Amino acid sequence: MKFMYTMPVKIIAGEGCLNENRALLMELGRKALIVTGKQSAQKNGSYADAVKALEANGQGFFLYDKVMSNPTVDCVFDAAEAAKRESCDFVLAIGGGSPLDAGKAAAALAVNAVEKDAIFRFSCAGALPIAAVPTTAGTGSEVTQYAILTNHAAQTKTSVASPALFPRFAFLDGRYMRGLSRAVTINTAIDALSHSIEGMLSVRASVLSDPMAKNSIKAIAECFRALKEDEPGLPVREKLLHASTLAGMVIANTGTTAVHAAGYQLTYHRNIDHGRANGLLIGAYLRFVEKKEKSLGTDRVGEILAALGMRNLDEFDAALNGLLGERERFSAAEIEGYAEAAMRAKNIANAAIAPQKQELLAILQNALAPGA
Amino acid sequence: MKFMYTMPVKIIAGEGCLNENRALLMELGRKALIVTGKQSAQKNGSYADAVKALEANGQGFFLYDKVMSNPTVDCVFDAAEAAKRESCDFVLAIGGGSPLDAGKAAAALAVNAVEKDAIFRFSCAGALPIAAVPTTAGTGSEVTQYAILTNHAAQTKTSVASPALFPRFAFLDGRYMRGLSRAVTINTAIDALSHSIEGMLSVRASVLSDPMAKNSIKAIAECFRALKEDEPGLPVREKLLHASTLAGMVIANTGTTAVHAAGYQLTYHRNIDHGRANGLLIGAYLRFVEKKEKSLGTDRVGEILAALGMRNLDEFDAALNGLLGERERFSAAEIEGYAEAAMRAKNIANAAIAPQKQELLAILQNALAPGA
Repeated sequence: MKFMYTMPVKIIAGEGCLNENRALLMELGRKALIVTGKQSAQKNGSYADAVKALEANGQGFFLYDKVMSNPTVDCVFDAAEAAKRESCDFVLAIGGGSPLDAGKAAAALAVNAVEKDAIFRFSCAGALPIAAVPTTAGTGSEVTQYAILTNHAAQTKTSVASPALFPRFAFLDGRYMRGLSRAVTINTAIDALSHSIEGMLSVRASVLSDPMAKNSIKAIAECFRALKEDEPGLPVREKLLHASTLAGMVIANTGTTAVHAAGYQLTYHRNIDHGRANGLLIGAYLRFVEKKEKSLGTDRVGEILAALGMRNLDEFDAALNGLLGERERFSAAEIEGYAEAAMRAKNIANAAIAPQKQELLAILQNALAPGA
Repeated sequence: MKFMYTMPVKIIAGEGCLNENRALLMELGRKALIVTGKQSAQKNGSYADAVKALEANGQGFFLYDKVMSNPTVDCVFDAAEAAKRESCDFVLAIGGGSPLDAGKAAAALAVNAVEKDAIFRFSCAGALPIAAVPTTAGTGSEVTQYAILTNHAAQTKTSVASPALFPRFAFLDGRYMRGLSRAVTINTAIDALSHSIEGMLSVRASVLSDPMAKNSIKAIAECFRALKEDEPGLPVREKLLHASTLAGMVIANTGTTAVHAAGYQLTYHRNIDHGRANGLLIGAYLRFVEKKEKSLGTDRVGEILAALGMRNLDEFDAALNGLLGERERFSAAEIEGYAEAAMRAKNIANAAIAPQKQELLAILQNALAPGA
């Protein structure tokens, strides 16, 4: 069995971990570009913790807090300009997937001369050192080499990927997830679940990534009931956070597959949250894989179900539907467009059982317009 | 839950992985100090593969092939002198735990001025870059920051530990284990099993290390029957190899505990193979932990048994005894000496349920002189 595995991120977890381990930040540089969204880092206490740590270290910082959901190329160039203008020599990215990915991309753009229209094809050989503080439990960006940005030219979201984008440190503090809305908690948990499931279905799945994927799937499934509560307790928050980091460690090694490729279409064209978009699609994708596996003699779907603690995909669909609530409606033309565009995504070929175009169309029809 | 996790080693696995990925070695330097034992790397093909890769890269090398089992301080200083004299700028360590650990220690000593009698207390801030090629499936040294050396002053084996000792690359090729004797295969598998079990019983066990530990325990237990065969097939060799690397990833983050601490005594004083020494002790240690857990309300032993696919420790003892065969005999005085010395080892305090001196003595008595 051939495989590769890499995970250069040092992971530090626990309440107060950022300040208790603030000495680590000293290894990164003298002045941080703190990258956040517009509000949440201020509300959840993570920004205050970061400032406290940097000030105690005698390190400077400049706050770039203009990252929107599904960050644009303009936004990350703007952040990189701020890093250069303010002489920041490292990036401290705080937030959900959008600020983390934007911070990582900015770290790369601060030290590479790239034209805006070349960002999705440039070879990134270096970046400012990065520390990441997730404030949602979904993206896994704190442990990946990916920065996913809105790609208007291709009308989708596309990743910039480079080993230089691995953060040096990921600080996991479950307290920052307190107060997240039920919808955000559910959508991000489904995103992490999708990472681990897609990781198990990747051509690059290995004996090293599988244990992480299965454990993360199990942990998230154990939280399904708690996900519907208005404010899950800190133990649940931590469990989801650690599971999402494990899922990030998985996709750092396996990549994602058809679910993410098609999910980006729903986000780009209908502004459906990324995790929710994956959730709308993953059940139908698993049905497709299950059917294919019958003739191949493999049973990855069975292994996924075992990790979920479920007997069959009906149970999985029921659980997901309970979390997703009423589904959006899509026209036949929309669905055809998504299938066509998703087939061009590089992560399609990453699936061990990759759908052909007609098969992907059927998956999307089953997922987005069942019975139509 | 507070924890840290780090694993900076890039792992490359599969038949022929060293030559297929030989370009990676170019990142390490111009000239390798190849560190091996006296014969096995020549016999199993790993040395020839390494030479082929280096020559194809146009890299030079010098062979240091004098590493003995349980390498001495003199040996690693000798290897480090060779690296300096021959202007080697990286280390390619090939072999079982002894050559890997010796190579890693030599990489450190080549760039640090240390007196021989200070080697177990020096703070190692840097080392030559290291690539590791395991040829047994046990040590996990290819993914750890430890180099374990014979410590004559303290009459035991002691680790030198530093983040600088993590190899940059670990190349896992199961073909190099073909032809290992049944005894070596068994002893090294038990060593890896002990790493994962002790990792689960460490104060530093975490939601990241546990999935790796459990999966590695499960994989090794599934090989128990094949371990008794004269030449297990390549799939079994690979399964054991990947499990031992997983176990190494565990102890890189958790450290080992009382079993290793006491096992070093058996190796130092009676020349009992390291893995076998752990195997002689681990059953009794688990009985001790199981008893303590009754009052603590935890059930780590139950989790370990579940990973083993066994119902109770009687089954585990029976399986281990079947692999270990007839046990060595030890005098009461020997056992007392081992308990006393092991209590001074730093890994004793690493156990979540750490034995007091009288408890460790009782564990060793139960393990080494049952019924006496």
